Amino acid sequence: MKTVQELGEDALIQRICKNLGQEVHVLTGPGDDCAVVETGTEKSQVLSLLKTDAVVEGVHFLAETSAQKVGWKATGRVLSDFASMGGEGKELLVTLAIPGKTPVNWVDELYQGMSRCASTFGVSIVGGETTAVPEGSAKVISVAGRGEVARSQIVLRSGGEPGDALFVTGRLGGSLAGWHLTFLPRIKEARWLVEHFSLTAMMDLSDGLARDLPRLAAASGCGFELDRAAIPRNRGCSIAQALGDGEDFELLFAVPSQSAKQLQSSWPKEFPLLTRIGSLTSSGGELRGGWGHFEACEVDEK
Amino acid sequence: MKTVQELGEDALIQRICKNLGQEVHVLTGPGDDCAVVETGTEKSQVLSLLKTDAVVEGVHFLAETSAQKVGWKATGRVLSDFASMGGEGKELLVTLAIPGKTPVNWVDELYQGMSRCASTFGVSIVGGETTAVPEGSAKVISVAGRGEVARSQIVLRSGGEPGDALFVTGRLGGSLAGWHLTFLPRIKEARWLVEHFSLTAMMDLSDGLARDLPRLAAASGCGFELDRAAIPRNRGCSIAQALGDGEDFELLFAVPSQSAKQLQSSWPKEFPLLTRIGSLTSSGGELRGGWGHFEACEVDEK
Repeated sequence: MKTVQELGEDALIQRICKNLGQEVHVLTGPGDDCAVVETGTEKSQVLSLLKTDAVVEGVHFLAETSAQKVGWKATGRVLSDFASMGGEGKELLVTLAIPGKTPVNWVDELYQGMSRCASTFGVSIVGGETTAVPEGSAKVISVAGRGEVARSQIVLRSGGEPGDALFVTGRLGGSLAGWHLTFLPRIKEARWLVEHFSLTAMMDLSDGLARDLPRLAAASGCGFELDRAAIPRNRGCSIAQALGDGEDFELLFAVPSQSAKQLQSSWPKEFPLLTRIGSLTSSGGELRGGWGHFEACEVDEK
Repeated sequence: MKTVQELGEDALIQRICKNLGQEVHVLTGPGDDCAVVETGTEKSQVLSLLKTDAVVEGVHFLAETSAQKVGWKATGRVLSDFASMGGEGKELLVTLAIPGKTPVNWVDELYQGMSRCASTFGVSIVGGETTAVPEGSAKVISVAGRGEVARSQIVLRSGGEPGDALFVTGRLGGSLAGWHLTFLPRIKEARWLVEHFSLTAMMDLSDGLARDLPRLAAASGCGFELDRAAIPRNRGCSIAQALGDGEDFELLFAVPSQSAKQLQSSWPKEFPLLTRIGSLTSSGGELRGGWGHFEACEVDEK
């Protein structure tokens, strides 16, 4: 009998999505960074973004990791997904599934980290649930949230066109050195982008450029060309690491090529680095590596 | 160092809530069945309900439980919380945290159960996440969702007044015999109630009447008196079981006493049993027993 590990994360998600129907008020369902829904009865100019994401002990953090940092990370991951649609977070719900022998202090510190991240970005933690897992099981912290984006400003993964310029914010690779626990979700940068430019596609880099760029290109029905030498790398990181380490939580996005120069010249100085790394094409582009939850992490820089 | 088991579930939740601030657009935060928020920019007549809930292998289901039933349960629990506010579900997000060696078939069957429950109640599964947990860890399925309720029809836990009549739907106790996996969330009954009567307080019974009734009374600043002999019990169940087994997923609600007779005479025949079990009072009322996630389950029928 096939296991989810053998099937792999992308194939598992495709399999799940295939069987899920969608209702009329759901504008984008599984497959993008967030689901996009209309709320209320009238045609609103504001759309709701829905997202859930989990961090697991032994996978996304270690038993000895500071609980405050775990809380920051669990919260920041969801906010990063709102950013990747051009929106911002509004409310969060937290599910803690932890063994009964967990010290209360650990929970206090976890919530301190979550609260600090939430308040930094103007988001409210409005509810949640605590449940026990059997002793010996990994702690699981699942954060679900609602964000908002103006209907006129939403950016999906699927709007890219051949010829569009591809950009990333910040530097990639080496997240395990620490910033996977302390990264800043690029909400401010995403909001600035959608207010000043017409982005055609965007996502956040959670599994590494090698895995995420092909996803964005495929969602847009495009291929891509990547200038590997241009990839902005964190200090001490190889290109392979910048491609494959994952958990960068930087923005990857596409704009029409004629906007590229103006974007680069008007990009605010106080923002992190902005780098053009390639283009969408009509077909082609191959990359291997990146992080899959159910597969061994492999990086192949061919 | 104190553990969450020693502190207990209610005290842990109180501790978490105490430290969480709330924003203006959040009408009800942690502490009720769902968080209630205003969405969009205009003052809408429709409010959003946000809820997250998790089921854990070894706690809420067994390794050998049918995955379809696990999926139904995980979904139905959240829908039951929307019912308890007088609303209904709209969209759901699913987080699967499972070991890589889980058979793909198990995931397929889980989603079949979730989809069947969602479509039975007109709700869409719009997204989610899959993540690995270390081998040997319990499976965790967390379902988060958005529901809606008309501003004029919302029912909180906190609106009860001394003298209000207390009712429960259905029969209590013995859920482990099977119906904790196959229960019907009381969405239809809740919608009927809020359209025909002014309920003052409502919740769903997930941890047992012995634990949940004091919560509703406390949220309303009331005491309660309970007619133990009147408690509607499932076949073969003692009063202690009806009070303490938990996972009934029936509605517990309060109405002004002058509405009680009319409610009982107009309650639709096709609905499950409706039973008056007592009243809210200005003070007093004591019950022990019920299900706490971090405590041993104790039932004391004094």
